[in-house]
Amino acid sequence: MRLDVFFTPAELPATLSDRTVVVIDVLRATSTMVEALANGAKNIFAVATTDEAVKIAQGIGRDETLLAGERNCVRIEGFDLGNSPLEMTPEKVGGRQLIMTTTNGTAALAAATSARRVLVASLLNVDAVARELAEGDEEITLLCAGREKRFALEDAICAGTLALRLYKQLGQRRNWSDAALAAAQLARRYLPSVERTLRRVAAGRQLLELGFTTDVAFCAQLSIHDIVPKYRDRQVAL
Amino acid sequence: MRLDVFFTPAELPATLSDRTVVVIDVLRATSTMVEALANGAKNIFAVATTDEAVKIAQGIGRDETLLAGERNCVRIEGFDLGNSPLEMTPEKVGGRQLIMTTTNGTAALAAATSARRVLVASLLNVDAVARELAEGDEEITLLCAGREKRFALEDAICAGTLALRLYKQLGQRRNWSDAALAAAQLARRYLPSVERTLRRVAAGRQLLELGFTTDVAFCAQLSIHDIVPKYRDRQVAL
Repeated sequence: MRLDVFFTPAELPATLSDRTVVVIDVLRATSTMVEALANGAKNIFAVATTDEAVKIAQGIGRDETLLAGERNCVRIEGFDLGNSPLEMTPEKVGGRQLIMTTTNGTAALAAATSARRVLVASLLNVDAVARELAEGDEEITLLCAGREKRFALEDAICAGTLALRLYKQLGQRRNWSDAALAAAQLARRYLPSVERTLRRVAAGRQLLELGFTTDVAFCAQLSIHDIVPKYRDRQVAL
Repeated sequence: MRLDVFFTPAELPATLSDRTVVVIDVLRATSTMVEALANGAKNIFAVATTDEAVKIAQGIGRDETLLAGERNCVRIEGFDLGNSPLEMTPEKVGGRQLIMTTTNGTAALAAATSARRVLVASLLNVDAVARELAEGDEEITLLCAGREKRFALEDAICAGTLALRLYKQLGQRRNWSDAALAAAQLARRYLPSVERTLRRVAAGRQLLELGFTTDVAFCAQLSIHDIVPKYRDRQVAL
């Protein structure tokens, strides 16, 4: 097994066709997607722009869909939901299709489109993803969404947690990239105090300033959901 | 003081004009530059291509200059020197001008051109650079050259060592970016076994395969030189 980590989508090689890519955006896009699907959402269209989201919603039928998304962490005007996992209750999202656009997460999913398959991970479902990866993937790429094209520590910690879980299950790290080794060390250091760390990272500080304190605590929970969402044809679903 | 780390030049913001940028390429470009200047080289032109290097040498006068550089770690055909710090002896480089081109290091220097000032660091001179930074820089950016546009652990460890030294001298890390926190943790973890680590990273493994075992050990030495090279007008000098 070859394990690679990319701290930002910009580092990705041109071709991903042999790889299983895991997209990670802990604060908050992939945490919100995992929570929505765990609470019964049918699927989530992940799109780049607000206009595109509205257009797809009109195509499917506005009554059938929920528009979700943020710009600068705040719900887009006219949208039904923001990008908070706490909004994704069974009452709101159960049986519904979501159309979602976020600053970093949806861009990372789009960057992974050419991969053999794409899984969606957050701390909320990290063990389920690790178990699925350990079942035989040969070329694994963990893709951190990062923050505004920059390194984001919370995504590196989640990638490192996946790496450590894989090491525990498979017992070797011969074909780990430098970034995979680094991510594992960061997980080892920060996972024991992950909620405190998420309040300290750049994305966490911005969320706290905007009043999303509970979101940060929520996204710091480890493996509360036993699901592995897949991204295919621009949709995230179980 | 604001401290930021970039793990690859691709992450750099468009404008660096307020910043002091420290360029790091432990294996081997900045280690080689530091060693050459410590052994009496007058200055080092850092250029992107072999053709450019030859043209500048012809302009200055071929007898006055030494051509140095590598592609895929190996000395460029017709050049006087490769990219090995061990070649940079006082006998060879004392009083001479070098013209140097390497795969990652010279590209990182070029990417930093718009900065207020640019310093050149490696493990060989890490304490001298930290002392100079602590003397009053407000916006410090540590730029890792990386390897083929990817994260390189040895550069992150060097950046983290600078961060830890600055913290020791200034006693605060309030304005550290996520990447600065991460680099410091990686230095804390790997610095005690840095020679072994440099043999394990991707760039180190490639050098070992090509027989540059002594180079890797040499570049792992901490603060053997008390110099801070600067990059200005495409030249590195003291």
